Amino acid sequence: MYHAVILCGGAGTRLWPLTRQAMPKQFLPLTSDKPLLVETYERLRRSAPPDRIWLVGGRLHERSMRELLPQLPPGNVIVEPIARDSAGAVGLAMARLLRHDPDAVFTAFHSDHIIRNGQQFDAAVALASRIAADGPIVNVGAAPTYPETGYGYVERGRQVATGEGVVAFEVIKFHEKPDAELAAEYVRSGRFLWNVGMFTWRASVIRDLFRQHQPGSVERFETTERMLERDPDRALATFSELPRISIDYAILEKATNRVVIEADLGWLDVGDWSAMGAVRRGDSGPTVRVDAEGSYLWSSNPRKVLAAVGVGDLVVVDTDDALLVVPRSRAQDVKRVVDELKARGLDAVL
Amino acid sequence: MYHAVILCGGAGTRLWPLTRQAMPKQFLPLTSDKPLLVETYERLRRSAPPDRIWLVGGRLHERSMRELLPQLPPGNVIVEPIARDSAGAVGLAMARLLRHDPDAVFTAFHSDHIIRNGQQFDAAVALASRIAADGPIVNVGAAPTYPETGYGYVERGRQVATGEGVVAFEVIKFHEKPDAELAAEYVRSGRFLWNVGMFTWRASVIRDLFRQHQPGSVERFETTERMLERDPDRALATFSELPRISIDYAILEKATNRVVIEADLGWLDVGDWSAMGAVRRGDSGPTVRVDAEGSYLWSSNPRKVLAAVGVGDLVVVDTDDALLVVPRSRAQDVKRVVDELKARGLDAVL
Repeated sequence: MYHAVILCGGAGTRLWPLTRQAMPKQFLPLTSDKPLLVETYERLRRSAPPDRIWLVGGRLHERSMRELLPQLPPGNVIVEPIARDSAGAVGLAMARLLRHDPDAVFTAFHSDHIIRNGQQFDAAVALASRIAADGPIVNVGAAPTYPETGYGYVERGRQVATGEGVVAFEVIKFHEKPDAELAAEYVRSGRFLWNVGMFTWRASVIRDLFRQHQPGSVERFETTERMLERDPDRALATFSELPRISIDYAILEKATNRVVIEADLGWLDVGDWSAMGAVRRGDSGPTVRVDAEGSYLWSSNPRKVLAAVGVGDLVVVDTDDALLVVPRSRAQDVKRVVDELKARGLDAVL
Repeated sequence: MYHAVILCGGAGTRLWPLTRQAMPKQFLPLTSDKPLLVETYERLRRSAPPDRIWLVGGRLHERSMRELLPQLPPGNVIVEPIARDSAGAVGLAMARLLRHDPDAVFTAFHSDHIIRNGQQFDAAVALASRIAADGPIVNVGAAPTYPETGYGYVERGRQVATGEGVVAFEVIKFHEKPDAELAAEYVRSGRFLWNVGMFTWRASVIRDLFRQHQPGSVERFETTERMLERDPDRALATFSELPRISIDYAILEKATNRVVIEADLGWLDVGDWSAMGAVRRGDSGPTVRVDAEGSYLWSSNPRKVLAAVGVGDLVVVDTDDALLVVPRSRAQDVKRVVDELKARGLDAVL
């Protein structure tokens, strides 16, 4: 059976002060009046019933997960005892799914991505689950619309299958985030896709790959999964033994039988304030711009007047207890503000 | 007898959103825990008793004037029926003083200037009142410490008198705000002083000058002054007939018998956020600067965390209901924000 697993990790430090440790962006409404997690869930409901949709996230976020999606069976919310990166989250979900459904095929979705083309998304999910049932690991890639240097790329080879308006190719190679020149080359070639990090596989296949590439990990996933409610201390102790490692690095880069589906998802990963400024339409409230047309001004108080004079590409984010100013070009460095706040023990605003 | 008149007008639009129409900077503590008006009053108390210290200001500010200086006799707070620039304020004060003291000599002080050298200030006031008693109009000038283009300059001639550590010169000419090149030349010459706008004169002398250069004005000042409490409508109607004109333009530029006292006042006119950033020491609360050492960050909420990344000379001012970002170099243009707010009827934050 097909299952959808939504990964709810991710600290969202680069969108501080809007996002906080306990409230990363997946739990906030960004582009509509619904939190991104709810939008993700509603999108997946077209492909799977609630009892085959699963959430994986940390203790700090358990309450948000359950409150935002009360329609899920309680056991479908999997709370990691401690963060062990995406390999840990996928492995724990794999262990739970296999206990319920030894034939499970599942996709690991990010909870905080924006998908604007639902039809292509549904077609990609349907084709991915069909192909993955036969063994391959299936990624979905978005045709790049510009030479983005902040994403990884997938190099595609010959066509292997087609779905409703989407096409599957063999994977030649995964490529790290390129520099500007290389990104331009990728886009020109027409053979490179943005890696949107949306992988589909048989649970049993990923288990075999964990066995092969991360010896001892499968036993720990299974023990942790069984002990989560029964013996939380043992679950924590067991899960803690696992390395902090991404699923890409742990498994995907080492796998051989890989397929990528090209789909026009209208995909966006709003990873920092520069991207956010491009996604959000309209101001939070009254604004005055004097020679500051390109500035992004936002306050959590919709009655607050925001005024900018003579600033070209500035992002200004105002909340009750914190205020940030940063040029779009430096948006990635907001993480350094959060690091500094941590170092100074200013926990109230983290 | 010597009197001190404190001019409390001035909208302070260039320090928005800290200052508002009803709360310009003279009523706020800027560099200490005392409002500038109170600091000005306490400075003048060394030269005159409370019953010879007078305030002139608008209706919008009557309450602040009376509340901040309850020790003044009520009649010493002169409330203008409508704003008629500095000529109106000085003329009204002149009329009131002459009714009490036909031999009055008085200085018109700004309520919102910063004077850091009290000894030189006291000596300048003493010398100015002594000279003015004999007829001249006496200005005080500060030796420029750098080629400021935002101030007017006074060109001095030969020495005419000395006081305790201060020297009086004849005035050759008043000069408008210069460009950078001219300002540098002024400073190099050693013969130019900053015009700090602090004039001392006999009330009868200034009355004669009003008669000569602004025909009809003295009668209106006298009628308004008599009617202020007795017949406010008539006071308003009479005062409204006067032109909006500065005392510099109405009288001072046309007078001939003028003296300037050079004094090292430690004088500052904090006219915009660029100057404010230079005056204020310390942050309003917790701040984080990443490559933003030169930025000025201020919030009315001392617990709010203010963070700036990669902004060199930015001024950020945050209040409950309004937020401003502006580079120091554009500080003068904050006035345009206020104009825009007025035009859009956003009166709540004016």
